[in-house]
Amino acid sequence: MGKSMNKIPRATLKRLPLYYRFVNTLKAKGEDRVNSKAISEGLNIDSATIRRDFSYFGELGKKGYGYNIDSLLEFFKSELSDSDIIKIGIVGVGHLGTALISYNFSIHDDMTITEAFDIREDIIGTTVGDITIKSMDDIKETIASGELEVVIIATPESAAQAVTDQLVEAGVKGILNFTPKRVHAPQSVQVHQIDLGIELQSLLFFMKNYGASEA
Amino acid sequence: MGKSMNKIPRATLKRLPLYYRFVNTLKAKGEDRVNSKAISEGLNIDSATIRRDFSYFGELGKKGYGYNIDSLLEFFKSELSDSDIIKIGIVGVGHLGTALISYNFSIHDDMTITEAFDIREDIIGTTVGDITIKSMDDIKETIASGELEVVIIATPESAAQAVTDQLVEAGVKGILNFTPKRVHAPQSVQVHQIDLGIELQSLLFFMKNYGASEA
Repeated sequence: MGKSMNKIPRATLKRLPLYYRFVNTLKAKGEDRVNSKAISEGLNIDSATIRRDFSYFGELGKKGYGYNIDSLLEFFKSELSDSDIIKIGIVGVGHLGTALISYNFSIHDDMTITEAFDIREDIIGTTVGDITIKSMDDIKETIASGELEVVIIATPESAAQAVTDQLVEAGVKGILNFTPKRVHAPQSVQVHQIDLGIELQSLLFFMKNYGASEA
Repeated sequence: MGKSMNKIPRATLKRLPLYYRFVNTLKAKGEDRVNSKAISEGLNIDSATIRRDFSYFGELGKKGYGYNIDSLLEFFKSELSDSDIIKIGIVGVGHLGTALISYNFSIHDDMTITEAFDIREDIIGTTVGDITIKSMDDIKETIASGELEVVIIATPESAAQAVTDQLVEAGVKGILNFTPKRVHAPQSVQVHQIDLGIELQSLLFFMKNYGASEA
């Protein structure tokens, strides 16, 4: 569990990427401290929530002086991974997988897709960008060797659960599921889903409530 | 702003798709009422937050009897759109756009991609699934005719802002930006972004804090 003394509550974890991005922006502007009021205004989150969230992040500043930006960034990075480069695998190199391989993750840390797998014989061994597509038969060995922190599922919906089962058996610790299918895994494996239907619903809810210029 | 009397706070809106999905699941199981405790347990959100959120949704049940599921579903649907079918456009029919056109949105309401646009002459007029790709020159007219509620941007990152400007000029009210580029639009246009770097960060944060089976 790295440097964190206590588990950070889930609700706080969900906001962590926002904090991380915001603090990174301040760093890029050359600032070295930030207080909860500035974060509150920048992210539109009430400052009581921010102070409570940041209380889980350890000793990051003196009361009244705000938080030290370098300490915050170091903390956030330590919560991401113990490695400097975060290696991501992908299963399914159809249109979506191909698009993801060329997606620019680099604006966030050093995340990069390093391995891609498929079951289709006609594309195994071919390359997309810098990546040579491997057979799914090789995934167990690749994961067992500790080469991948997380794996993205970009297969057809119908294959999502079977692929999840294979990944779990191979010992993967984190899965990002890009199919609309909800997949099941043991509690020891974190599964997040990019659900485009939910994302569109969220956008529509905001349009309905904050659509006019009064927002 | 439809039937809603007051604006729903942003933090509540973000949870609305989760509530909607959860209540839909209960409906599918044949249930007709649900109380805040059951929602709290099902979604891992504290019940005070749930009661506060639901207080914005109008008169949906008697105290102590829980919320009426049909009324909730009707409310959620009314907050999504005034139309029965939600028509979505997409700009950029590369690998990502092609993948999105065949994505199964149908598990959520009646959302469907009905129009696709690109600037590449060699693909304009060709079809992906049921959709014939149109020229970007046609987008203004399509949006002006009220045919599209939201537009997804799936272009290269470098084109994202220019496309956003065109969409805004054409009168679009909601944009789902799938590129890593942050785009700017007037406050009257709602812009949400699918940021895969943020999604991966979030997954890594959860793995670090809830990775072991103690979760």
